[in-house]
Amino acid sequence: MQIEVYPTCDSVKNLSGKTAIVIDVLRATSVITTALFNGAKRVIPAPSVDDALILARKFEGHVLLGGERGAVKIPGFDLGNSPLEYKKELVSGKTVILTTSNGTRAIKASESAEHVFIGCFLNASAVAEKALKLALLGEAPCVSIVCAGTLGEFSLDDSACAGLIVDILVRNIEREKEPPELSDLAFACRDLYLKYQSNLKAFISHAAHYKRLLGLGFEKDIDYCLQIDVIDCVPVYDKKTLEVKIVL
Amino acid sequence: MQIEVYPTCDSVKNLSGKTAIVIDVLRATSVITTALFNGAKRVIPAPSVDDALILARKFEGHVLLGGERGAVKIPGFDLGNSPLEYKKELVSGKTVILTTSNGTRAIKASESAEHVFIGCFLNASAVAEKALKLALLGEAPCVSIVCAGTLGEFSLDDSACAGLIVDILVRNIEREKEPPELSDLAFACRDLYLKYQSNLKAFISHAAHYKRLLGLGFEKDIDYCLQIDVIDCVPVYDKKTLEVKIVL
Repeated sequence: MQIEVYPTCDSVKNLSGKTAIVIDVLRATSVITTALFNGAKRVIPAPSVDDALILARKFEGHVLLGGERGAVKIPGFDLGNSPLEYKKELVSGKTVILTTSNGTRAIKASESAEHVFIGCFLNASAVAEKALKLALLGEAPCVSIVCAGTLGEFSLDDSACAGLIVDILVRNIEREKEPPELSDLAFACRDLYLKYQSNLKAFISHAAHYKRLLGLGFEKDIDYCLQIDVIDCVPVYDKKTLEVKIVL
Repeated sequence: MQIEVYPTCDSVKNLSGKTAIVIDVLRATSVITTALFNGAKRVIPAPSVDDALILARKFEGHVLLGGERGAVKIPGFDLGNSPLEYKKELVSGKTVILTTSNGTRAIKASESAEHVFIGCFLNASAVAEKALKLALLGEAPCVSIVCAGTLGEFSLDDSACAGLIVDILVRNIEREKEPPELSDLAFACRDLYLKYQSNLKAFISHAAHYKRLLGLGFEKDIDYCLQIDVIDCVPVYDKKTLEVKIVL
């Protein structure tokens, strides 16, 4: 089994036959995971604000429009990109159309994969186990972890989460006695995660994006997004319908 | 002062007003540094094998043709991509035309920078000090370390060398009492380097490219390329003449 990590959505290559796990810890994939866990019917990632508005018209308004530009809520949208906004009472049974600067682009960039899962610290074990199951069945022997990055650049928060997922995969594969093959970046991310696992926030505080969010008053979002394994479900992106759902 | 690291040549953005340090530890920038240290007049990086052959015709044969594809010497070329081949008695006073899979592409990708230096473990301190001098003079306040990577992917060997150069810069800036601003990847590379500095070879043995070179019998090259600060000069790429020289 192979495990590889891509540092940004722009760096993603052809993923055909592979399982992609898309990560944008701060905050798009944490938002998607939270919204679906809280009962949203589906999340539709939209590349641009215009795309989101056009989609919303198709649904004749029976949707929630969410997302950010420059980390803040888009004028006229119902919700921003804070996972704490996506409460059960607000999203349950609803369709959410989401457009963000990095995360929704990373999902689009992973469309060539056989399976596209949405991952973050919140559901790290769940998403790793789902990918591992497919690999052990021989369905998709390579797991490609796609970090969204921040504005086209490598991001410490995403790479730490990638490192955690690599570590879970490696530990579980070792149990299966099959040695995994790590790409250079998969090795480096795991190494960084293992070094800083006891104080993730201190590590991630060196990230440019962390500092930006902190300056905008989003510290509660950061604390929420850094919780590990508090959600036990995996959002799956359906390439045919272009929507993300939880598939049981 | 800002310090940023790019993981691959494909990820490089506009570097105007910045100092670029191009790194391809295994082996292109180690070859260029060695050839010029051993008295080569100039090294001309050529993007393709055809470009190299056309350039050689212009020089009417009075050149050495060097380089690799798939890590091995190109048929009809004088030299491969092993720094140990570029001995004084062979290269002294000569023009070398070099084409490699990653390193020469990374130099081209950095052409928008104000200054383009060639770096590797062999001349890490020399290249860091040269870039720092320019930054302190206010000439190029951002140092962009461009890792060539391997076939478009992040490479542990280049990132360890980037980490060493970041560390030298940070330690010397601290002496100047100006706090440097590190990009996320600059922070991560420095961290990895500091962890593994006492056994670089063990760390780099996890790199896919290391394993490939080892399999081809290039262990002596690897040992040579991992020596730190054995060469005290900095190859400079001249964007006008498209050649690399040592500028005293």
